[in-house]
Amino acid sequence: MIVGVLGAGQLARMIALAGLPMGLNFCFYDSADECCAEPLGKLFRGSFDDENLLKQFADEVDIITYEFENVPLKTIDLLPKDKVVYPSVKALDYTQDRLKEKNLFKELGLPTPGFKEINNFEDLQNAKKELGFPFVIKTRSGGYDGKGQLVLKQESDFEKAQALYEAVPCIAEEWVKFEREVSLISVCGKDDIRFYDLNENEHRNGVLYLTQNKENDPIQDQAIQWAKKLAKKLDYRGVLTIEFFQCGNTLLANEYAPRVHNSGHWTIEGATSSQFENHLRAILDKPLGSTKSHGYSKMYNCLGSLPNKESLLSIEDLHVHDYDKTPREGRKVGHINITHSSLDSVKKSESDFLNLV
Amino acid sequence: MIVGVLGAGQLARMIALAGLPMGLNFCFYDSADECCAEPLGKLFRGSFDDENLLKQFADEVDIITYEFENVPLKTIDLLPKDKVVYPSVKALDYTQDRLKEKNLFKELGLPTPGFKEINNFEDLQNAKKELGFPFVIKTRSGGYDGKGQLVLKQESDFEKAQALYEAVPCIAEEWVKFEREVSLISVCGKDDIRFYDLNENEHRNGVLYLTQNKENDPIQDQAIQWAKKLAKKLDYRGVLTIEFFQCGNTLLANEYAPRVHNSGHWTIEGATSSQFENHLRAILDKPLGSTKSHGYSKMYNCLGSLPNKESLLSIEDLHVHDYDKTPREGRKVGHINITHSSLDSVKKSESDFLNLV
Repeated sequence: MIVGVLGAGQLARMIALAGLPMGLNFCFYDSADECCAEPLGKLFRGSFDDENLLKQFADEVDIITYEFENVPLKTIDLLPKDKVVYPSVKALDYTQDRLKEKNLFKELGLPTPGFKEINNFEDLQNAKKELGFPFVIKTRSGGYDGKGQLVLKQESDFEKAQALYEAVPCIAEEWVKFEREVSLISVCGKDDIRFYDLNENEHRNGVLYLTQNKENDPIQDQAIQWAKKLAKKLDYRGVLTIEFFQCGNTLLANEYAPRVHNSGHWTIEGATSSQFENHLRAILDKPLGSTKSHGYSKMYNCLGSLPNKESLLSIEDLHVHDYDKTPREGRKVGHINITHSSLDSVKKSESDFLNLV
Repeated sequence: MIVGVLGAGQLARMIALAGLPMGLNFCFYDSADECCAEPLGKLFRGSFDDENLLKQFADEVDIITYEFENVPLKTIDLLPKDKVVYPSVKALDYTQDRLKEKNLFKELGLPTPGFKEINNFEDLQNAKKELGFPFVIKTRSGGYDGKGQLVLKQESDFEKAQALYEAVPCIAEEWVKFEREVSLISVCGKDDIRFYDLNENEHRNGVLYLTQNKENDPIQDQAIQWAKKLAKKLDYRGVLTIEFFQCGNTLLANEYAPRVHNSGHWTIEGATSSQFENHLRAILDKPLGSTKSHGYSKMYNCLGSLPNKESLLSIEDLHVHDYDKTPREGRKVGHINITHSSLDSVKKSESDFLNLV
């Protein structure tokens, strides 16, 4: 059985690392020069509108999935119709446009921060009235890890915003004073849906910095309820992630990702079956694996470059995940997981790690 | 960092699966047509005396290890001298000759079943006198998984034995009535040695069938004492396995393997750092990872072909390790691990598994 993955970055790499022990093989499709999934399968390197190469790729695989939500819909359209693509194109479609996504949340009754379409100066003025300062302006498409976003604190910031909305369609979003950011990783099989522990996330400069799992978190049930609704609406198959802001006892949906997610990386050592393994089980119509966690886990992203490997490996219960990428400022080059049944042990290793970086 | 592995079977495959997340890359060298490690690195396919190809292989790697103890010593000799090979050649040398190996055990004071060199009929007669019926005759080199062995129960069996010792040098071994077979997986770093839980093993037709870890087994300390002695004598680096027969409160050393071992496969999900990861840490001069087990584990080998994948994946807490090999009678094509903190849970999953096969 050969699984085709659109994208050959670290998510594809970790999907393959989970699938190979199950006897699966992999093909990847990417346009980038450096593809860290390359050692784990056959790489098709080409643009995402190269019909001929996409056909060759599709011909070699049994099923297709993707590792990033910005796969052009046109790419999916160019793939032979007899090849199943999971998660559904519908899931891609909504998430590629923040406005569509927010309207979908609204339609499903999912609380979400206030938002407004921004196409001109008048829209900005109205957003100010409706959302109040500060508010955020974001490109409707293509932004990730804090890119394509501006915080507007006063009218004099409107000029910067103008450059953005004149270039690409934008959306304004209410600035939410949240207590914490959480995410829920769900996995949807043929007739089963399972959930990992809720993740508590900390971002720095718009990029995920730390995730820790929260077993039996009191707000988990609320997150599950919304995930079930969204999954049903999207005829979802595979791993589905929703990011929320928690304000008091309410979760506000920020966005969803139709894929395995950075905030689920702790599941590699921290849960019985990882998000990567379960994504594969789900898209291949196999029974889902247990999402139960092994106690406490913390995941830290490594940006730019990895800390000294020797020192990392000397930390008890710490697992290094090196994506084997060329170091570059701000680039996600790896992550570390710390897992233990005792929270004190996790904290000890965490403190050793933080002393390193 | 590129690790070269002599041999490209399932052990090499699992070494690579453990090393890739640490940012390592792999080259393999094997003479077989079908090499299940092939998807995980660059394969050099050639005979083990092809000096030119061995040199090309060595030139591409930073360090060399092996996945089987029958690597010809000549092969190691043909490798450029500036490339480190771990475990030591000494460890290979002893283990390739059962007589040398047994004499080494004797020299170190390690109890071992009685044995005698067999070169002619007179030796057989003496073996009968010293060891008594039944006794086992084994080829001194090349045997594994019960191959190259004969049990002699009476003088009329001597004829069969004659064919064996006339073809290749042989050894006679006492037939031991043991209570159980156990093995100890040690990992030897630069200045650290660690041990996994003792394994209790069950063989069927000379092939490992079931392994379960035994945390705090009363005889573990005895096994550790012998492993330390052996490792020291061999200037050992990497994973070292010793198989023992337990007779009362005594362990008799049966044989050692200078490599990761089938009875250590449970460590993939069952211990903090697996034997494969720790073998790599050890040979690369990195700090060793924790060998602590996560409760109870059982490992069953899958011979010939894998049971139905769908059914396997529906068993809670069961992890499939499919080596992606062509099915063939008696061939090791995969294994399954069951791990849980509760023994009852392990037994429930085990019973589901045994109902399948």
